[in-house]
Amino acid sequence: MQLTGRMVIGFDRVAGTGRAITAVDPRTGDNLEPEYRYGDAGDVERACVLADEAFDVYRATSAEQRAAFLDAIAGKLDALKGDLVQRAMSETGLPEARLTGEVGRTTGQLRMFAEDLRAEDATGSLTTGLPDGAGRVLSVDPANEGGPEIRQGRVALGPVAVFGASNFPFAFSVAGGDTASALAAGCPVVVKAHDAHPGVCELVGQAVSEAVREAGLPEGVFSMLYGDGPTLGIALVTDPRVQAVGFTGSRRAGLAIAQAAANRPRPIPVYAEMSSVNPVFLLPDALAERAGELAEGFVGSVTLGAGQFCTNPGLVFAVGGTHLDAFLDEATKAIEANPGAPMLTPGIAKAYAEGVERLENHPDVEIVARGQEPDAAVGCRAALVVVDAANFGPDLQEEIFGACSLVVRCDDLGQVVEAARGLEGQLTATIHGKGDDAERLLPVLERLVGRIVWDGWPTGVRVGHAMVHGGPFPATSDARTTSVGSLAIERFRRPIAYQGVPR
Amino acid sequence: MQLTGRMVIGFDRVAGTGRAITAVDPRTGDNLEPEYRYGDAGDVERACVLADEAFDVYRATSAEQRAAFLDAIAGKLDALKGDLVQRAMSETGLPEARLTGEVGRTTGQLRMFAEDLRAEDATGSLTTGLPDGAGRVLSVDPANEGGPEIRQGRVALGPVAVFGASNFPFAFSVAGGDTASALAAGCPVVVKAHDAHPGVCELVGQAVSEAVREAGLPEGVFSMLYGDGPTLGIALVTDPRVQAVGFTGSRRAGLAIAQAAANRPRPIPVYAEMSSVNPVFLLPDALAERAGELAEGFVGSVTLGAGQFCTNPGLVFAVGGTHLDAFLDEATKAIEANPGAPMLTPGIAKAYAEGVERLENHPDVEIVARGQEPDAAVGCRAALVVVDAANFGPDLQEEIFGACSLVVRCDDLGQVVEAARGLEGQLTATIHGKGDDAERLLPVLERLVGRIVWDGWPTGVRVGHAMVHGGPFPATSDARTTSVGSLAIERFRRPIAYQGVPR
Repeated sequence: MQLTGRMVIGFDRVAGTGRAITAVDPRTGDNLEPEYRYGDAGDVERACVLADEAFDVYRATSAEQRAAFLDAIAGKLDALKGDLVQRAMSETGLPEARLTGEVGRTTGQLRMFAEDLRAEDATGSLTTGLPDGAGRVLSVDPANEGGPEIRQGRVALGPVAVFGASNFPFAFSVAGGDTASALAAGCPVVVKAHDAHPGVCELVGQAVSEAVREAGLPEGVFSMLYGDGPTLGIALVTDPRVQAVGFTGSRRAGLAIAQAAANRPRPIPVYAEMSSVNPVFLLPDALAERAGELAEGFVGSVTLGAGQFCTNPGLVFAVGGTHLDAFLDEATKAIEANPGAPMLTPGIAKAYAEGVERLENHPDVEIVARGQEPDAAVGCRAALVVVDAANFGPDLQEEIFGACSLVVRCDDLGQVVEAARGLEGQLTATIHGKGDDAERLLPVLERLVGRIVWDGWPTGVRVGHAMVHGGPFPATSDARTTSVGSLAIERFRRPIAYQGVPR
Repeated sequence: MQLTGRMVIGFDRVAGTGRAITAVDPRTGDNLEPEYRYGDAGDVERACVLADEAFDVYRATSAEQRAAFLDAIAGKLDALKGDLVQRAMSETGLPEARLTGEVGRTTGQLRMFAEDLRAEDATGSLTTGLPDGAGRVLSVDPANEGGPEIRQGRVALGPVAVFGASNFPFAFSVAGGDTASALAAGCPVVVKAHDAHPGVCELVGQAVSEAVREAGLPEGVFSMLYGDGPTLGIALVTDPRVQAVGFTGSRRAGLAIAQAAANRPRPIPVYAEMSSVNPVFLLPDALAERAGELAEGFVGSVTLGAGQFCTNPGLVFAVGGTHLDAFLDEATKAIEANPGAPMLTPGIAKAYAEGVERLENHPDVEIVARGQEPDAAVGCRAALVVVDAANFGPDLQEEIFGACSLVVRCDDLGQVVEAARGLEGQLTATIHGKGDDAERLLPVLERLVGRIVWDGWPTGVRVGHAMVHGGPFPATSDARTTSVGSLAIERFRRPIAYQGVPR
């Protein structure tokens, strides 16, 4: 498949007329061909009009038709895996094994939603007597005392705008979880491609559009545009035809999108996954038993993928003393031995370096270890930082995207629990330890996060039916759902009651 | 039970210090004792602090404990039924049979959520191994390939602010659907009592608070304050401890609440049910078969309870001709024979009269029938109005709360469908007719409403598992849920994943 530098608007391949961008290879600093030009308001409108036109036909497809379509997208991505991984290595600097795994994760996710649709279908709950499949019936109140039968179904919301993330060029991008779950729900999708991996976006976008054509679906089921967030992105969010938004990225961009959506004449839901520092709680019993093992696991999780994970453990709470000292000693050795790695973009690397510099200049924190300078044009040196709980304030809760983690040394468990209570909403929290201390912490963390990890590490979000990748504000803009796992599909449909409607 | 004019803040009965209000008997225009004084910011804070303190204990109760608590509230309301109905007749002017039925509906609703909790419990899905009942596990990904088990549960959001409606002094007020579903979910509730029926609010509020005490629950599980929307109401919505809002009322008030909630440092979900004109589609085959019967059913639905229902059919679409003329003739007779009825408040009656006057002065609409002037100080004269589809614009879509309905005369079915496409979001839409015409309309209505009624009338929202009382903006602020029916409980809890957490 050839890279053309063009957008995907339905079945057309359209050259943008706005600003030109190219991807940068973080390993070498080289610009990568081809050039991509931003689309304009007319492109947004065209994609949205097509999506709206496609909506009624697409949502009326059967669960099996949509499942087969998702499977077909997965098949195309698997077939393209070699090209996808090579281009992604150039655009993101992420290693081959990781990217190969991520393609598998992405196709597995598409297939999981296909499986979910078939399972829902198999319950026999879809016999609505309505135009095939348009409404999914999930519960029924039988006719009684002369009253009519009432069936509760789900209807798709309408065209969905998807904003992918830089750090997962497959799993949270063009054909990632937001797109897969929106398509599963029966919603057409318009993606804003990510500037950090435009070539990967084009390869995947073309594959999805081909799958639309081969499935005989209306072309508006999928489009993909290049553009910047403040203009093209906001134009997409405020287009009257768009009915929901999926976003993964920075807090600033996520809040701007949520604001724009709330200010529409007719507001729409925004599912923005924004920022999280993923606190880890090392309880005294665990530190006493296995400080070294914990340090090893911790540094592995912090430095994985140059720390560029939404679930990177950026904050650690523990009670000070010899066991914490042992942990810090081992963690220091591991951080110092860390070779570093390329970061996704020059902008991300700059923000990371500035974030660590802010900590270096902070009067109350101590940089206890730095990793090695990586052999990359755009790289990340890991950092381990310590602060006493008395000096831990809101300024130190801010996410530093990259391989940096802050250990908060507490006087006692009461101070650990108190600090937990003061945290902002998070995607995850992790507990190492057990017994009464853990029981005391658990209810505090339940109010704070979308996922509680026990005796593990938060990185590595398994795609499964029960997964929750979400959490209270500002981790996301809507804690009532998840962007990974089967429940994600419910973000893009709503309940409807059919009262007395013939089957 | 004595009326004291006091608020309910936990187990305290507190006299407000602000503006004094009294209820008005719409039948006589008399002020009703006692006087109620508005609370202030300190009262809001006290209620919210108590609610927050109660939250962890309350959400950790077992499903059975909460079910028994809901049953106990229902039992108390049943026992008070005579007093409740008498006071409600004075405060609302609604007839005894309707109010008696509404108490039954309200206690039935409390018992339905109790039943839902027990059913959820019986699936065995609640064995979290966490502090009893704190998280409800709904799906599990088993441990595989060395990876940990992941269980998905639900956690309650936190204290919920509830704003009741004037038109259902029981079912959508202090112990109505919002309160019942929030309590079922494990959330403490702070109610802003409605000025239109303060005495009923006090009776019900005292009963709920007594049930809290008798169940041995923390007092903050329930409070109820008197106050106006713009000050006390917004103070409640913006209190940092409040985590969600349930509201039923006007569009203006609902939008103000949604805006205030979105502008909080940490935004929270608002479930506001606001306004709906509930379009009815009389298809040619139905009009040809039974114009008289339809007219009778229609006028019954329009004039029920002086038209003061969220689901009142305020808009009718039909193709002009002899069958529609026959319908209008019969409807005219029925409207003219309608004796009228008291309205809930002088303010509502004034707004209704002004709304009908606007139609009278509208150059393009024709008032074809008015009902009789009722024998009440604050009353409603029914109105039937006709407009040609060519002149039907957005100004005629606005809800006129009361027994008024506008018939839009269309040239053909294409114009009916086109008009439907141009409507705002609605709670309900009703189809009389069948065959291809109905099939053509159905997908349009699915995009528009929360409930489709076939060969019936939209008034009368059955409390059941499958009911959806919600719909796209501006019918509600959040179409993804319902304020009536089992699904309402999900508004007040969110998913959480337990990864590797011991059972």
